[in-house]
Amino acid sequence: MGLQVGCRLRRCALRLATTAPTGTAATVGEESFRRDLRSYPPGMDTYTAPLRDVRFVLEHITPLTALTATEAFAHADPELVMGLLEEAGRFAASAIAPTNRDGDTQGSVLSDGEVVTPDSFKQAYRQYVEAGWGAVQHPAEFGGGAFPLAVANAVKEFITSGNMAFSLGPLLTTGAVYLMQHHCSQEQLDAYVPKLVSGEWAGTMNLTEPQAGSDVGAVTTKAVPAEDGTYRITGQKIYITYGEHDLTDNIVHLVLARLPDAPPGGKGISLFIVPKVLVEDDGSLGERNDVQVVSIEHKLGIHGSPTCVMAFGEATGGAVGELVGEPNQGMRQMFTMMNDARLGVGLQGLAIAERAYQQALPYAQDRQQGRGPDTPPGEQAPIIEHADVRRMLLTMKANVEAVRALCYLNAHALALAHAAPDDAAREEHRKLADLLTPLSKAWGTDVGVEMTSVAVQVHGGMGYVEETGVAQHYRDARIAPIYEGTNGIQALDLVGRKLPMDGGAFVKAFLGELRTEVDALPGSLSAIAEALHEGLDAVDRTTAWLGEHRESFDDVAAGATPYLRLLATVVGGVLLARGAAAAQRLLDDGASGGDAEFLAAKVTVARFFATQLVPAAVGLEPSVTAGAGDLRALDAGQLAP
Amino acid sequence: MGLQVGCRLRRCALRLATTAPTGTAATVGEESFRRDLRSYPPGMDTYTAPLRDVRFVLEHITPLTALTATEAFAHADPELVMGLLEEAGRFAASAIAPTNRDGDTQGSVLSDGEVVTPDSFKQAYRQYVEAGWGAVQHPAEFGGGAFPLAVANAVKEFITSGNMAFSLGPLLTTGAVYLMQHHCSQEQLDAYVPKLVSGEWAGTMNLTEPQAGSDVGAVTTKAVPAEDGTYRITGQKIYITYGEHDLTDNIVHLVLARLPDAPPGGKGISLFIVPKVLVEDDGSLGERNDVQVVSIEHKLGIHGSPTCVMAFGEATGGAVGELVGEPNQGMRQMFTMMNDARLGVGLQGLAIAERAYQQALPYAQDRQQGRGPDTPPGEQAPIIEHADVRRMLLTMKANVEAVRALCYLNAHALALAHAAPDDAAREEHRKLADLLTPLSKAWGTDVGVEMTSVAVQVHGGMGYVEETGVAQHYRDARIAPIYEGTNGIQALDLVGRKLPMDGGAFVKAFLGELRTEVDALPGSLSAIAEALHEGLDAVDRTTAWLGEHRESFDDVAAGATPYLRLLATVVGGVLLARGAAAAQRLLDDGASGGDAEFLAAKVTVARFFATQLVPAAVGLEPSVTAGAGDLRALDAGQLAP
Repeated sequence: MGLQVGCRLRRCALRLATTAPTGTAATVGEESFRRDLRSYPPGMDTYTAPLRDVRFVLEHITPLTALTATEAFAHADPELVMGLLEEAGRFAASAIAPTNRDGDTQGSVLSDGEVVTPDSFKQAYRQYVEAGWGAVQHPAEFGGGAFPLAVANAVKEFITSGNMAFSLGPLLTTGAVYLMQHHCSQEQLDAYVPKLVSGEWAGTMNLTEPQAGSDVGAVTTKAVPAEDGTYRITGQKIYITYGEHDLTDNIVHLVLARLPDAPPGGKGISLFIVPKVLVEDDGSLGERNDVQVVSIEHKLGIHGSPTCVMAFGEATGGAVGELVGEPNQGMRQMFTMMNDARLGVGLQGLAIAERAYQQALPYAQDRQQGRGPDTPPGEQAPIIEHADVRRMLLTMKANVEAVRALCYLNAHALALAHAAPDDAAREEHRKLADLLTPLSKAWGTDVGVEMTSVAVQVHGGMGYVEETGVAQHYRDARIAPIYEGTNGIQALDLVGRKLPMDGGAFVKAFLGELRTEVDALPGSLSAIAEALHEGLDAVDRTTAWLGEHRESFDDVAAGATPYLRLLATVVGGVLLARGAAAAQRLLDDGASGGDAEFLAAKVTVARFFATQLVPAAVGLEPSVTAGAGDLRALDAGQLAP
Repeated sequence: MGLQVGCRLRRCALRLATTAPTGTAATVGEESFRRDLRSYPPGMDTYTAPLRDVRFVLEHITPLTALTATEAFAHADPELVMGLLEEAGRFAASAIAPTNRDGDTQGSVLSDGEVVTPDSFKQAYRQYVEAGWGAVQHPAEFGGGAFPLAVANAVKEFITSGNMAFSLGPLLTTGAVYLMQHHCSQEQLDAYVPKLVSGEWAGTMNLTEPQAGSDVGAVTTKAVPAEDGTYRITGQKIYITYGEHDLTDNIVHLVLARLPDAPPGGKGISLFIVPKVLVEDDGSLGERNDVQVVSIEHKLGIHGSPTCVMAFGEATGGAVGELVGEPNQGMRQMFTMMNDARLGVGLQGLAIAERAYQQALPYAQDRQQGRGPDTPPGEQAPIIEHADVRRMLLTMKANVEAVRALCYLNAHALALAHAAPDDAAREEHRKLADLLTPLSKAWGTDVGVEMTSVAVQVHGGMGYVEETGVAQHYRDARIAPIYEGTNGIQALDLVGRKLPMDGGAFVKAFLGELRTEVDALPGSLSAIAEALHEGLDAVDRTTAWLGEHRESFDDVAAGATPYLRLLATVVGGVLLARGAAAAQRLLDDGASGGDAEFLAAKVTVARFFATQLVPAAVGLEPSVTAGAGDLRALDAGQLAP
């Protein structure tokens, strides 16, 4: 059964056992998931990878075949991919999900200048490295599996559902590889990247400083050239995810800093590699570099993930760093990985909402309380029999599926932005990814927060008790709208940089394609089409309004957040409708049994989303086009109590 | 400056220092609130009672003068009331608010069978009793201040903003008094109520059992008659707020239990007084009763409030209890206090949203990041200069003011339900209170959760760090949509019991009055009127639909939650418009200076709410009238991953 993706230097070591069953719902954890639930909470907080749902997306909404038709991804044939995802689902369920509670209650702690991660993380991380899960999306030349991002993201989704706090370490390492492969010298690539791809070493991003949170241009960390061609780095960084930990022998810090005489602001920032342990020419580990964790944050959630204050060069006057690429290109270099990183955070919203849904559903099926429409007098019914509980569950399911479709489309576009056969097609897909990324990040993470809240509510009083575990999802989810660019910043990016692409023509063409698709929905889905037309009408009107008011950007900025929500919801609705149309075709062609039930559910969920959730987003239209007037009308005295 | 309301047995000891300043913004805590904010977090999490806002509501939205015109409340003249509220605001800011962080970090803990509350709670509670704040709304015959609920609720708001976990003890005691005064014998009243009114003793409600959460009729705790006319109570209760603690000498538990041969379900439940310490005939404390705390819950929030599992009669075969009123009337008796209790929880949503707003606002004024529209190049601006941050702040402020107006109208109606001069008027106000209570509870607490989340977001990464304190509000707020009847149950109560009042005529008349009021708005507020008309149109249509589908209650139940949100939002919008109309009149009459700024803000907030927040609620209409079809379409297999 062994699967290894990547993991030994420079050899794409993908081996997939041909005995792996395909096409069934996963697997490890499922038995316990469906066991007698009377003994809640122990064990109810398990996880089953939603393989059927993911497969459906990759077949019918954002077809994997469009990727495998390219030269770069020709090897990733759908059955191979589904086998890989099944294995990933099994891994997330059996090796990662059980670490989630431990990670929360034990947390990562600082002890004698070292960060000690939760006990269960050590074995889980070892297994992660052994199986090579970190290598899925990376190029074969570094030992990666060279799978498209659309596939790697599904793996990320499963592992994040298993344990969001755990997943952040690998996420940051992936980001480091991505950045380094685009900007490092061959020597640097050789020295660091294969070990990062395999997961033997970890990577971090060191951007934030106290005065420079979202405003990266305000960074003050210094880099001074040394005689040997390296640099001496001094400064403090905050909010460094997995800045220090005990999971790997080395940690490769990517650090934004200023060279002497660098221009002010974002144009004077350079990127440096600052390893925790210096690497000798032969690749062996040498001396400890002057990089220290100063403290770790006591956070609302993701307790397993150490969020570090890092000090560079405090003991010796400078940590040894290597410049990446040319001086003063740090901001541009960081931008390389921005879509990837932001999509990764959007996926967290999806992943944690899925996990919370998987906890709420069996609870609602098990918990006896009150009577449903058909409950005999004197008896109690499981609360799933109450219409309002059904509404909560279907709201969660529909939102999860819509966000998944959006995030996977985003990954699909990013994959084609690299792999499409000609420049024009690559450019089109890059623009699509640019447009979708703020939607995935902001809407995905807002939905993550909202749906974990719904999951708490389904549990009633028990949801408020920490041992139940559902409150952890609510706490963990809350970081995602904040980091990797707050959701307000995503909305500004959308209206300020993405809508204006090609003078507005790109978004207009994209919306036109969505409308064509809705027009083509079969008559049996007319309720969906009607609701989505109203959604698209509102999107068209607001998009036009934002375009017409570009000269008064404050008014545009004032409408950014509700516009993002409106657009994302409508796009999500159209993607679910795309799935519903495919499901309807398969049903019309005679699908039967469990397949037919699964496909019928896709139609129901798409209809529920379009007819009951999209209209509330349409109701945001007036706040998009209201302008900044009322927002700016009150001064500090008027705002104060 | 001393104020005492109630607090010595049978003597209404209201003394109000005439030197108390009136009409100014409060006071204690304000200085530190406006201090140099650079050293965040210490001290930024302070509280200032929103006296101007509350005064505005009591003067212009739900006029106190309508209450003081009644015989029962003739003594509560507005200046006396405002003096009292200033004192209450000062108390909440200076004595209660500083205990909030302690209460969270230290929490209440179980030690050797005793619950130890946080250190700071002891002095705060002593001060609370000394000042007599628990007595404000209770009748003079028990030593209370006999103020209308509209006034007592403002006091509750301030104390809850100060520390929600602390406020729950007094809230439960108030509920116990309320219930006992309506159903106890004179002997029982004499023995228990004055000490509860003064706060020397505390009260609790013991309803919930593991199998009987929301379904109180499923209670199994037993009560067996003893020869001396008392009863022996045996059973376990869960989720008992302040079931055990060290703040008072005695705790009076009100316990639902079944007598032998009681009919099944809700009709066989009786109410008992079970004191922690038995009370001798002379009023002195006697033997310890057989009531024990078994464990306390480890909760997401409100750590200062001990949530207890209570065992009755486990050591001796029965705790001594006294029957309240007639056998098998427990459910009906509990219903007496339901409006009061549910409104009290709705106020928690308001109070914690206000507190979170008060933390987010100075942070946004202080935190430098990025540039606003007018920031010179190379400089940073406070984040309040960003339109999107303004949107977050104004959304918080507008929601807080709308929920406050609704909750205060609810209290106003409850006060007149007791005090109006004739039966017909009392009945009308009782019905209004019945209609509004589920709105206050469910919408108020949903807004509480949502606005505390916004407050976290305003803080960015710092909001996710527990030391900042804003995450505590987010955790604390999450219980309120759950307890005292989940918000789903509130919505069912609204559509199942409240809309059908008088065959639907009551709600229709109420909505007609709202429309008349909106019709009468001056031309300068036409934008508000237009938006509210659209809101009222949607409410009328959905209300009619729910009425027409009463025979198919599952379809009605399916729309209950979105309908509640729609109705509450529109009512809140009309109440803010009422305030805006009054403000506009005062402005037209020449209000100037700080007053004019304050009044202008009322107009802006009402317009923002009506034109930018109400439309999103209108967007819920299709989900109200969709029926249960799609909600019930999926079976367990289709819902599963």
